[in-house]
Amino acid sequence: MTKPVCLIIGAGAGIGGTVAGRFARDGYHACLVRRSDRAGLDRLVAGIVAEGGSASGHIMNTVDDNSLEDLVTHIEAEVGPIAVAVFNLGAQIGNRSLANTTHKAFEMGWRLATFGLFRLAQVLFPYMEARGKGTVLVTSATASVRGNAGQHSHAAAMAGRRMLCQTLNAEFAAKGIHIAHIIIDGAVDAPDTIGKMLGPERFQALREEKGLEKDGLLVPAEIAETYFHVAHQHRSAWTHELDLRAYTDLAWWNHATATF
Amino acid sequence: MTKPVCLIIGAGAGIGGTVAGRFARDGYHACLVRRSDRAGLDRLVAGIVAEGGSASGHIMNTVDDNSLEDLVTHIEAEVGPIAVAVFNLGAQIGNRSLANTTHKAFEMGWRLATFGLFRLAQVLFPYMEARGKGTVLVTSATASVRGNAGQHSHAAAMAGRRMLCQTLNAEFAAKGIHIAHIIIDGAVDAPDTIGKMLGPERFQALREEKGLEKDGLLVPAEIAETYFHVAHQHRSAWTHELDLRAYTDLAWWNHATATF
Amino acid sequence: MTKPVCLIIGAGAGIGGTVAGRFARDGYHACLVRRSDRAGLDRLVAGIVAEGGSASGHIMNTVDDNSLEDLVTHIEAEVGPIAVAVFNLGAQIGNRSLANTTHKAFEMGWRLATFGLFRLAQVLFPYMEARGKGTVLVTSATASVRGNAGQHSHAAAMAGRRMLCQTLNAEFAAKGIHIAHIIIDGAVDAPDTIGKMLGPERFQALREEKGLEKDGLLVPAEIAETYFHVAHQHRSAWTHELDLRAYTDLAWWNHATATF
Amino acid sequence: MTKPVCLIIGAGAGIGGTVAGRFARDGYHACLVRRSDRAGLDRLVAGIVAEGGSASGHIMNTVDDNSLEDLVTHIEAEVGPIAVAVFNLGAQIGNRSLANTTHKAFEMGWRLATFGLFRLAQVLFPYMEARGKGTVLVTSATASVRGNAGQHSHAAAMAGRRMLCQTLNAEFAAKGIHIAHIIIDGAVDAPDTIGKMLGPERFQALREEKGLEKDGLLVPAEIAETYFHVAHQHRSAWTHELDLRAYTDLAWWNHATATF
Repeated sequence: MTKPVCLIIGAGAGIGGTVAGRFARDGYHACLVRRSDRAGLDRLVAGIVAEGGSASGHIMNTVDDNSLEDLVTHIEAEVGPIAVAVFNLGAQIGNRSLANTTHKAFEMGWRLATFGLFRLAQVLFPYMEARGKGTVLVTSATASVRGNAGQHSHAAAMAGRRMLCQTLNAEFAAKGIHIAHIIIDGAVDAPDTIGKMLGPERFQALREEKGLEKDGLLVPAEIAETYFHVAHQHRSAWTHELDLRAYTDLAWWNHATATF
Repeated sequence: MTKPVCLIIGAGAGIGGTVAGRFARDGYHACLVRRSDRAGLDRLVAGIVAEGGSASGHIMNTVDDNSLEDLVTHIEAEVGPIAVAVFNLGAQIGNRSLANTTHKAFEMGWRLATFGLFRLAQVLFPYMEARGKGTVLVTSATASVRGNAGQHSHAAAMAGRRMLCQTLNAEFAAKGIHIAHIIIDGAVDAPDTIGKMLGPERFQALREEKGLEKDGLLVPAEIAETYFHVAHQHRSAWTHELDLRAYTDLAWWNHATATF
Repeated sequence: MTKPVCLIIGAGAGIGGTVAGRFARDGYHACLVRRSDRAGLDRLVAGIVAEGGSASGHIMNTVDDNSLEDLVTHIEAEVGPIAVAVFNLGAQIGNRSLANTTHKAFEMGWRLATFGLFRLAQVLFPYMEARGKGTVLVTSATASVRGNAGQHSHAAAMAGRRMLCQTLNAEFAAKGIHIAHIIIDGAVDAPDTIGKMLGPERFQALREEKGLEKDGLLVPAEIAETYFHVAHQHRSAWTHELDLRAYTDLAWWNHATATF
Repeated sequence: MTKPVCLIIGAGAGIGGTVAGRFARDGYHACLVRRSDRAGLDRLVAGIVAEGGSASGHIMNTVDDNSLEDLVTHIEAEVGPIAVAVFNLGAQIGNRSLANTTHKAFEMGWRLATFGLFRLAQVLFPYMEARGKGTVLVTSATASVRGNAGQHSHAAAMAGRRMLCQTLNAEFAAKGIHIAHIIIDGAVDAPDTIGKMLGPERFQALREEKGLEKDGLLVPAEIAETYFHVAHQHRSAWTHELDLRAYTDLAWWNHATATF
């Protein structure tokens, strides 16, 4: 029997790969897509299969013309119906002043984080609409709701993505398609994103200061539980926007000291 | 063995009573508190017990001095540790123009919806802090994030409550207490709230137009699934704010026609 | 000829008194209302008169029953039509933990900041509605849009006030009454508020660090320019919400360090 | 003596052209830039000159490489220091379903409304930073704060722009550069934008229903007063975000009927 597909765009060793495993554990075929690191992708797929799940992987630069489009068409024709898509592409390039943010970097943020979701929706939603159901979970960032110094590219891209989620919901919710915008408001214990940004030593120091034993970083396996829950909310009670953070973190709206 | 307690403030035949049953099903003792209708309360408690759960009920006007305070003290001393509190008191009084909103009505909205949560936190949090954990789920309304004509009392009370949730999180999250603010952005299929507000005939008409078969009203049993999930999020990935609505409803931020 | 009245509720030596002077300079009779310090009030009134303006003062505890109500009735009958009301009552009591915020303090925040505006609107708007015009400028705080540790009373009161402004606008804008909610997002160079909160030495140190020469505090005279502008916006282009901060301050939504 | 320059990007017969005239009236040289309609541009420039002002015009497609960049360099070298820039490019393409929004249209929205502001800031801010002052007024839309059906391109572009304003303020406010994000929350009485979108007959009908006599449309001359005020706020009291709407319009956050 054909399994429903959970398509993960941006499947590294962090939220993406872990969410893939979570859905595979409960009967989905997980399609993992990432830009590079074939070996890392193969490890994620093999890990899911070793636990009895079903998974496959694709290396793909999603900004290439027709990449997402051909992928969705292929999966729907050959693998199974995409019941859930997790759009997990980030566009964080670290803190860069305006002068140090190139036109190319600013545009790339938009291509990955905003335009990519638009393209995915355009190719995927006709399938979901025909079935009268479907879910898109969008991993988002604090930058989607407030700008900050050095975040010119990131915040513009993420905010565009958030409003795109709202326009998609306004058009497609009544057709049975559920889009959820999930703000990850803190550092995730993820070697493929923050680990690479900080480098191994600073990442290890962060893990020791706030890490797994202390639950001071967002733990991908726990994030995945909420992704799974939201994807299975009954259509009479859907969440469109929610946030996630570690208990030791202040929410983004809390300055440490302001009393105004 | 003592069961953990789930305390429901505002337990009618809608979200409150249903959430009580959901937690009781998974091992909690449910304490249901409501202002009136002893017979209705007894039916809810009996229903939970009939399904093998553990529950008890209290009739109480929470705006009375020491009411919530004595209740929490009593439960902690005699029943069990309050692991989860669901603050489900509403303050909706229908649409009233400014001229028709009495001082008393405006104050009552605040006493029920804002001050009540403050009082609950003050008496309950020392217990939770001593245990290093606890959860408060606050049922909220669209009025907490935007005012609307005729909602003078309701919006002021709900917005005060939302900001109170944020101040409580800022002080208590790192101490292990999780406060979640849940915006119910639509009509709930609930005879004790919207049913009473509309009257039996208009409520029945609404149910026929958007009701259970069509999932056009928020269904309490489905809302309760998300309440249960949020209460069991691991502390490394907590949600502080989320919304819920039926798939056929537009989100509050969507006018039907505006294109600006 | 009767001058239009600008009524200032909360007229200390900061925003309130300065705004009073600004409106008096352009032809309004300024009615200054404050709770205490008759000598300070008299100095403000005398200062306005010395510059050729028209002003009068009232010492009044606005939380007393019928205080605001009798005042508005008196002014409308004896002094002139209230064209502009500036609701400038604060409810900042400094940072207090939940345990150290008494029931009384929490209630007082609401009585001053939320209920006071409701009462003012109820007595004043029938006069304005009959004239088909009127303006209410509401001084607000960052706490109206986000909670923060220690701000339990302040944030709940200010958020209630903000939503009240939105409900009032929804009902009264089309009747010609303009309510503007003005977020003061920073420290004001005001001896009667932050000066008293900090004490003379810390206030002086703050002024030397960020003060007048450096424009690092919000300057009341400059705030007053924007109040005056908003009060005179043509009804075809009204502002309902705006913020004000000194150029050296980060906006409330900016953490210093977060890059998520 | 060299006049300070007010540069208007997007200077049609609506907000742009009117704001140009407002600044010229008070001593600025207005540089008007628009994509097409040389005759219309010439009329605007001639109109300003006829009233004793100073103005010049440029026809330019701002999405072309180096267009904005060369323009700013030219003005700073040959005309005068750009004291104020008004970024007034819209990206409204009417309501289009997802299926009817082409990749090209979605990208064009971003190029005009988001990337254009980024490019302008990058070339202009070094000049302003060297002078320790400068102002950028960004005309924005309701779509910057909430998505709506049919607004996929518009909302994503406008939201990216808003967050870009926040990142720019976070980096540049302390350097004396003031960026203000102005939400135009309603229909503007402007033949070059809404007039073209509706066509002459429907535009005339709208004007008769809500038009100038009734102040039911946003009047450009009144909008321009607020633009001028914000550009002249003292740096000790800057507004970063504000909204404008006609008194007869409901704010975007008000549904007509919701009571939740």
